[in-house]
Amino acid sequence: MTVPQRLLLGPGPSPVSERVMRALSSPVLSHLDPYLLEVLDSLRARLASTFRAAPDALTLAISGTGTSGMEAAVANLAEPGTKATVVVTGYFGDRLAQILERHGAEVERIEVEWGRACDPARVEDALRRRPADLVGIVQAETSTGVLNPVDDIAGIAQRHGSIVIVDAVTSLGAMPVNVSTWGTAVCYSCSQKGLGAPSGLAPITFSAAALTRRVFCRSFYLDIGLLEDYWLRRKYHHTISAPLILALHEALAIVEEEGLDARHTRHEQNHNALVEGLSTLGLTLLPPEKERLWTLNAVRVPDGVNEAGVRRHLLDKYGIEIGAGLGPLAGRIWRVGLMGAGSTRANVDLFLSALGTAVTASRGGPSVRH
Amino acid sequence: MTVPQRLLLGPGPSPVSERVMRALSSPVLSHLDPYLLEVLDSLRARLASTFRAAPDALTLAISGTGTSGMEAAVANLAEPGTKATVVVTGYFGDRLAQILERHGAEVERIEVEWGRACDPARVEDALRRRPADLVGIVQAETSTGVLNPVDDIAGIAQRHGSIVIVDAVTSLGAMPVNVSTWGTAVCYSCSQKGLGAPSGLAPITFSAAALTRRVFCRSFYLDIGLLEDYWLRRKYHHTISAPLILALHEALAIVEEEGLDARHTRHEQNHNALVEGLSTLGLTLLPPEKERLWTLNAVRVPDGVNEAGVRRHLLDKYGIEIGAGLGPLAGRIWRVGLMGAGSTRANVDLFLSALGTAVTASRGGPSVRH
Repeated sequence: MTVPQRLLLGPGPSPVSERVMRALSSPVLSHLDPYLLEVLDSLRARLASTFRAAPDALTLAISGTGTSGMEAAVANLAEPGTKATVVVTGYFGDRLAQILERHGAEVERIEVEWGRACDPARVEDALRRRPADLVGIVQAETSTGVLNPVDDIAGIAQRHGSIVIVDAVTSLGAMPVNVSTWGTAVCYSCSQKGLGAPSGLAPITFSAAALTRRVFCRSFYLDIGLLEDYWLRRKYHHTISAPLILALHEALAIVEEEGLDARHTRHEQNHNALVEGLSTLGLTLLPPEKERLWTLNAVRVPDGVNEAGVRRHLLDKYGIEIGAGLGPLAGRIWRVGLMGAGSTRANVDLFLSALGTAVTASRGGPSVRH
Repeated sequence: MTVPQRLLLGPGPSPVSERVMRALSSPVLSHLDPYLLEVLDSLRARLASTFRAAPDALTLAISGTGTSGMEAAVANLAEPGTKATVVVTGYFGDRLAQILERHGAEVERIEVEWGRACDPARVEDALRRRPADLVGIVQAETSTGVLNPVDDIAGIAQRHGSIVIVDAVTSLGAMPVNVSTWGTAVCYSCSQKGLGAPSGLAPITFSAAALTRRVFCRSFYLDIGLLEDYWLRRKYHHTISAPLILALHEALAIVEEEGLDARHTRHEQNHNALVEGLSTLGLTLLPPEKERLWTLNAVRVPDGVNEAGVRRHLLDKYGIEIGAGLGPLAGRIWRVGLMGAGSTRANVDLFLSALGTAVTASRGGPSVRH
């Protein structure tokens, strides 16, 4: 069996460049190899600059996917009785609330219609009514394509003395993430979206103030103190995956070479080109214009079109992967990712042309059967 | 900077073959790609056969290192008040006890001198005095090179109605692991030792009876029910790392082609050849003959020899990595791994020759300075 070549335009993973693939297939090193330990130092510095973290923040990568980053943030800051206020604008806000509940936190959810951003006034109001130790917010809601106003919400949390947990899984490396301005904050992401590495690592940064608010961590694997001992003081904790580390390190070199601002602009421009092309096809996005991600586009499935059939057509005929809707949006949207190395004008054009054909076929053309 | 080529003869990772490296660098797929989902089915079957698990066991791989496997076993079976008896014959038995304690279990430790195996009578005695919900045992204690009599201890646990948690991190794919005979059992391992893939995945198997003894899992990331939903029912849980999955899948194909019995014999023979060669050099192993692993050799550092200097010499002059002692054995032993693709007669000969030179240099030769 040969592994098929896909053009990854779904909610992630995004395409991995040749340079990053070469780094991934470097000779395997152990977790305590002197060379690898130097790479870890360099990786911490590159991650900190990508997060725009303060010099005294603790920044490293968890050995797991983005969800392990979410759980690491919670496991180090929440315990039974912790009061948490979580903005739920979609599937991943809900997941963050669930993980907090599993750790015993008393969670108040600010439920927002899927497809809309959270009005910061609702957070202000919630914290006035009930102070919270933690405020959880997903900056880039991958399930709806919505950008939440995280700078404003972090400011409100800061004024109320709450730690803010920010999920930047679908923004880091592609849209502005400014943790150093967020006060007592923890922010996590993943390796396989805006950064363009394979999945398996979860970058995470704790501000110095957040580190002082740690609780007893039930998890040994995700204990940030033990991870700091390994990353900074070379004390064995787990056998970190050298191929994933070398790949992420190379992906971050590419981010650095391009420059964060230029990278953000590229993502914005290709998003705009996609939206314009979709509009020509008569297609619209779920979130209103000011609330959209540049990385993940939630495209409404028009009436009379078979949602799954179009995805299958794109995969079978063009090798293009896009994502389906989750939860209440299943069958109602497609999720089209333009992230990392995948955010190019050529990919926008190729995708629009393929989508046009697939939608036409689904409306009665001869090429799709269910 | 060029990544150095190492001969990995430490406690893991073990060398990764060309075939597995090629699989690792296959085109990247998403976690829901139809091709990848087929690979997951095939991977489950290959893992089950490597564990020698019963057909009704649940076998999959956790997206993390061996320690995440350890934590997954605990997080799904232990809660505050759970009574656990843990055999501690070294660093990893202690880690298992610590993780159980973090999850609220009442842990009784059976402490055994580091370098010796546990006498099963001590487990029998402990369970008679205090029945336990769980018995934890590390089959292959990586910190001491000791093989524990896991078949006997699992039998005792079974007769007492206890679930047995077996750590097979340094045995699976290299030494006999027979989970189907262990009753109500959970067994986990890692990808980067006996199996010969890069680190980052933790194979795990729950017997059908163990699945009925699950508790509420505080961890979302390690919840075996949610993982089962993804692996078996394709319900999204996390973005599994396709490169790691494809690499492990290929490594298991190699295990299957060689045959488990032949593979065990190869590990035994190369271990024996190493012991014989060490003895010619005047070197001895920490554990007595009947209690030794074939995968990991704990070699006593002779008087007058600089432990770290020898390791540095091997790494700098020969590119050979071996491991240091952990905890009370730091400075007292070297840990020499012959695992997976690394267990060859050529590696034994190369290592013995390099070690002889390094030890001589350390005893007063001109080539090592501290």
